[in-house]
Amino acid sequence: MANSIQTAVLGVSGYAGAELARLLLHHPRLKGRPPVFLGRAEAGQEASLTVLHPQLADNNGSAGLKIEPFSWDLLKARGVEALFLATPHEQSREFAPLALQHGIRVIDLSGAWRLTEPANRAVYKFPDEGGSVAAAVQAKAVYGSPELHREEIRHAELVANPGCYATSIILALKPLVASGWLDTDRGIICDAKSGVSGAGKAPSAKTHYMYAADNLSAYGVFAHRHTGELLEQLGLDRSQIVFTPHLLPIPRGILATIYVSFRESRSAAEVDTLYREFYAGSPMVRLFGAGHLPQIQYSVRTNYCDIGFELDKEGRRCIVVSCLDNLLKGAAGQAVENLNLMYGWDEAEGLT
Amino acid sequence: MANSIQTAVLGVSGYAGAELARLLLHHPRLKGRPPVFLGRAEAGQEASLTVLHPQLADNNGSAGLKIEPFSWDLLKARGVEALFLATPHEQSREFAPLALQHGIRVIDLSGAWRLTEPANRAVYKFPDEGGSVAAAVQAKAVYGSPELHREEIRHAELVANPGCYATSIILALKPLVASGWLDTDRGIICDAKSGVSGAGKAPSAKTHYMYAADNLSAYGVFAHRHTGELLEQLGLDRSQIVFTPHLLPIPRGILATIYVSFRESRSAAEVDTLYREFYAGSPMVRLFGAGHLPQIQYSVRTNYCDIGFELDKEGRRCIVVSCLDNLLKGAAGQAVENLNLMYGWDEAEGLT
Amino acid sequence: MANSIQTAVLGVSGYAGAELARLLLHHPRLKGRPPVFLGRAEAGQEASLTVLHPQLADNNGSAGLKIEPFSWDLLKARGVEALFLATPHEQSREFAPLALQHGIRVIDLSGAWRLTEPANRAVYKFPDEGGSVAAAVQAKAVYGSPELHREEIRHAELVANPGCYATSIILALKPLVASGWLDTDRGIICDAKSGVSGAGKAPSAKTHYMYAADNLSAYGVFAHRHTGELLEQLGLDRSQIVFTPHLLPIPRGILATIYVSFRESRSAAEVDTLYREFYAGSPMVRLFGAGHLPQIQYSVRTNYCDIGFELDKEGRRCIVVSCLDNLLKGAAGQAVENLNLMYGWDEAEGLT
Amino acid sequence: MANSIQTAVLGVSGYAGAELARLLLHHPRLKGRPPVFLGRAEAGQEASLTVLHPQLADNNGSAGLKIEPFSWDLLKARGVEALFLATPHEQSREFAPLALQHGIRVIDLSGAWRLTEPANRAVYKFPDEGGSVAAAVQAKAVYGSPELHREEIRHAELVANPGCYATSIILALKPLVASGWLDTDRGIICDAKSGVSGAGKAPSAKTHYMYAADNLSAYGVFAHRHTGELLEQLGLDRSQIVFTPHLLPIPRGILATIYVSFRESRSAAEVDTLYREFYAGSPMVRLFGAGHLPQIQYSVRTNYCDIGFELDKEGRRCIVVSCLDNLLKGAAGQAVENLNLMYGWDEAEGLT
Repeated sequence: MANSIQTAVLGVSGYAGAELARLLLHHPRLKGRPPVFLGRAEAGQEASLTVLHPQLADNNGSAGLKIEPFSWDLLKARGVEALFLATPHEQSREFAPLALQHGIRVIDLSGAWRLTEPANRAVYKFPDEGGSVAAAVQAKAVYGSPELHREEIRHAELVANPGCYATSIILALKPLVASGWLDTDRGIICDAKSGVSGAGKAPSAKTHYMYAADNLSAYGVFAHRHTGELLEQLGLDRSQIVFTPHLLPIPRGILATIYVSFRESRSAAEVDTLYREFYAGSPMVRLFGAGHLPQIQYSVRTNYCDIGFELDKEGRRCIVVSCLDNLLKGAAGQAVENLNLMYGWDEAEGLT
Repeated sequence: MANSIQTAVLGVSGYAGAELARLLLHHPRLKGRPPVFLGRAEAGQEASLTVLHPQLADNNGSAGLKIEPFSWDLLKARGVEALFLATPHEQSREFAPLALQHGIRVIDLSGAWRLTEPANRAVYKFPDEGGSVAAAVQAKAVYGSPELHREEIRHAELVANPGCYATSIILALKPLVASGWLDTDRGIICDAKSGVSGAGKAPSAKTHYMYAADNLSAYGVFAHRHTGELLEQLGLDRSQIVFTPHLLPIPRGILATIYVSFRESRSAAEVDTLYREFYAGSPMVRLFGAGHLPQIQYSVRTNYCDIGFELDKEGRRCIVVSCLDNLLKGAAGQAVENLNLMYGWDEAEGLT
Repeated sequence: MANSIQTAVLGVSGYAGAELARLLLHHPRLKGRPPVFLGRAEAGQEASLTVLHPQLADNNGSAGLKIEPFSWDLLKARGVEALFLATPHEQSREFAPLALQHGIRVIDLSGAWRLTEPANRAVYKFPDEGGSVAAAVQAKAVYGSPELHREEIRHAELVANPGCYATSIILALKPLVASGWLDTDRGIICDAKSGVSGAGKAPSAKTHYMYAADNLSAYGVFAHRHTGELLEQLGLDRSQIVFTPHLLPIPRGILATIYVSFRESRSAAEVDTLYREFYAGSPMVRLFGAGHLPQIQYSVRTNYCDIGFELDKEGRRCIVVSCLDNLLKGAAGQAVENLNLMYGWDEAEGLT
Repeated sequence: MANSIQTAVLGVSGYAGAELARLLLHHPRLKGRPPVFLGRAEAGQEASLTVLHPQLADNNGSAGLKIEPFSWDLLKARGVEALFLATPHEQSREFAPLALQHGIRVIDLSGAWRLTEPANRAVYKFPDEGGSVAAAVQAKAVYGSPELHREEIRHAELVANPGCYATSIILALKPLVASGWLDTDRGIICDAKSGVSGAGKAPSAKTHYMYAADNLSAYGVFAHRHTGELLEQLGLDRSQIVFTPHLLPIPRGILATIYVSFRESRSAAEVDTLYREFYAGSPMVRLFGAGHLPQIQYSVRTNYCDIGFELDKEGRRCIVVSCLDNLLKGAAGQAVENLNLMYGWDEAEGLT
């Protein structure tokens, strides 16, 4: 177990990158060893993290928080051991294999390495799909959900940090699916809603204030990229689960309302116990229990995934509500959990 | 068919009351015959509509838009033929029977007279439940959904204007239920989201800006009052449908995401035709068709209910999205549709 | 006085264009003669107004609301008498002179023709600045503020529709400036705040939901384009007035808080009378009087400019608050007022 | 200098109380010594901090964060040295004198003890106004602005934590006023805007989502309570400064736009230097300099007060913009700064 390491972050201009920078700058294990912040060399001259994100500055102008042009030589010179990729998936497909070659461990926040089934990956249209290098790298990748893959993450060279929607749904459903209690033939419905930061920082018609504010819209119906993560991590097939995302008029936060049926009648106490046993030892899940549903306001700006449920009178139908902050537990915060596991630190260090 | 009539509105302090006042003041059939605006006598001295709702004023201070203390004598003196009750359901239970006794037709915007089954009404805990007067009045009440009960509304003495959530869900589901195509054993899931005006004007912890803004919360799970309307109007039982409302951080608008399964595979064209045939002749439903989902921003501040849908590849699962403005098609606008029908005018008059 | 005319609108993709289309489609004088909706020919094939703005559709898909490629021949063939330019100022500089040549009267919503002083126009950097054609056209242009230039507008060939901020400030200040009561040496401070629709529909970093929501920012300090309109219409010089715009996290609406000093003590009654006399005969100004300040919520989605004020105890300092909807009284609604005046109709027709 | 002390907080149900609880629970000097959380005994039985504010819970349900009924005996038994009053000013008038009698130092977040001039206090209508006990306590009170009264705070028995609006304006103006550069005869205009949390947690017509959202309103014109703080801390009289608050549709954050005139022309460099010298040694002020104006989004959820300015070309008029989080630098955060100073710790400890 290392007391500290040198980290680097490629891609700090977006919302998740900014949150990751903030978390790493305040991480107890990284005191005095700020991350190397990197931009792609071709993106032009150096800039400063606090020019991009003024809220991150201290009152000395935060000299030193430069964004440097990426090069493997620079990473080597700085002794970088762990590299966060907060980049679009196209770039993560390119950089992750090279980092592994250089002996640098990678935590990738994109969708580049999350999926093991080619059919599920098809939606990304990776140009290197089917290539042997990509296959070898994919084989090393561990899906970075600490609650599901804690041990594998500890030794991973490449962690594929989960999608934000996927995290909210997988954590809500995994105990139920694993229990065998679900009548999956009746179908699992996941009606999920996310704040606008989930759509990224690039200005577009859909991220325009006038489009998002005072509005709600469903999108990606029967077709959202995160569906593959649900199938693989929950062991379901497409006929058993439906996932519909909606764009909420709020900056951040996800709430997923999940509808399941039980084969046999279950009591609230049974369901509650199921969750509590499954998440014993998982510091970043807060269980609200029966009849206490989480709300976005409680989990936003925390790294918790909050889960509550309600049973019908017959104990046959159950509605599970899960909430998290899409930029923290759904992205940068979970990435830091993975860092913690990879270096033998406490899973929640720097996150509470 | 009357060319014009004298209307009155009891309860104009709330949001639906204000919208109703605005619609009636601009209704082509009511030119020169503004509604009599009424407050309960015991609520204190007279006030003005434009003091309560400054946005309704013209630049002459709108002299004359007084709110007068309610009395049956006043209604008689003014020759009121149709009375809108924009009152809490407790008051509507009290006033509607008396109005019918006085020979005044009633359009009630509350939940007081919408439900025919005592079991469904139980949630309201009406003090006159089981009484013979209430039973006689209930027997006369027509559920005020023009798309479902157009002919009965024309002759109704008492119209029970539908709930806002109920309208969005019933209009989306009725053609599918009526078709017999649904596999109701697999359950119908209605995940609905409403703006804050649906929660009423009374200040409370849940309508505080700090609670509602930047948040989303589910409430009334397995227990919302509008469930009874769904059951009765769609002919379903409680095991076949689940309805979950959520509080959206927007002023107005409802979006319902509805999940159904078909017994047999259906094509998008079949579903589209089903809706178009069902709503031929219904001016206040806009059909978006397959793959074009409505959004709250399109229907808000209109009287339309917008409906679109998406089929999965197998044609077995269908997601229907419906949107409306909870204060218009979900309340005051639909009430005016009912007025139009009751007096032989065009269903959409004053609403487009 | 014409009973009706044929209008056309060039530029209906933006927010003001959509509001203008809505107003003209429902204008009593234009029943049965919908505007010709035009896009620039080079912008590609025809589209439909209701594809761009689904909220404008009726339930028949609004067949006929096509956007046609602009040509002078088309305008001639359709008998267009009045052309609205809801275009960027560069295009309005180009199209307005040509329209006048074709004998078509123009109402221009951009800043192209509002300013008579070259120094004030400098901020726009018009490429034809100093040219004789532009000078001749500018000489014909009337600043389209009905409250200030009602008679000239009636006969104008070219109306330069005022800026949204400028309207809110000029209407609040004109009576005070005209009275001679102001101590302009102490300076007039105009602290104005606008919703995001004022920034236009083009996606940008500043119109991104994540930038605008939960935020407030000042911009264009000492440098906003609308300053020239204030100077020219109020007869002030730059040392006498400061105007600071701010971007509000709301879709629409402007509130201007204006600070003035009087040379001598004035009573609230005197100030109130001053306003009431000045705006007698102006149907689109609502005067709230002393101690009753307008709010954005009252004027939004109306065509009114609301004005109220508060005096200090000494009667020497006065704070005037004015509110309007930047897309209506601040753009499309005022344009329709100008149309009404140009054709001898009631100033408020189609606007209340 | 104490390594650690025992603190207590009376009043944790409101927004500032919740933030204060959060800050104290994570304060490095208070590790292992959580504050005693207190509610008034008459308010009923004990409750838990995390029931009131679920976002503060960890995943063990945060057992132990009880809210205990207030009594002096309890404070004594727990060895409380410093008591935070996050109570309405009426209660702070009552509790602060008693705490001093018990030898407990007080940091009061209300307006109870901020004002030394009876005329400025009149707006509060304190029932004990003019009493000798109140006068003696007031004489001991130090206005808790670390930037202005750092040394006195270190030894204070009673710190009157400044108002949120007052902090934003005083910090922006103090260097300018102290410089003697201002032409105060021309008047200082402070146009300030605050998020809804500034209005408190009690539900009311003005904190209803439907009132605050999509709106902006001015209030307390010429009459806001914080004016007295401006006068006393800046040494101005009422004729020299105007302060107008507005209610912004955002949860938290204040932006003040401040208009001043200089007696003589000043350069941006001079103004910048003035600020930098004044705030050298003040860790919680971030200076944005000339032409870089702060925005609410940068300071919200930080404890910084951000200040920037813009000069006109003549160097005679200056617009200063200052931003802060009304619950942190404007309330709970500044209270923790005061705690730090009182016990010899670093001013910014636990706040960055």
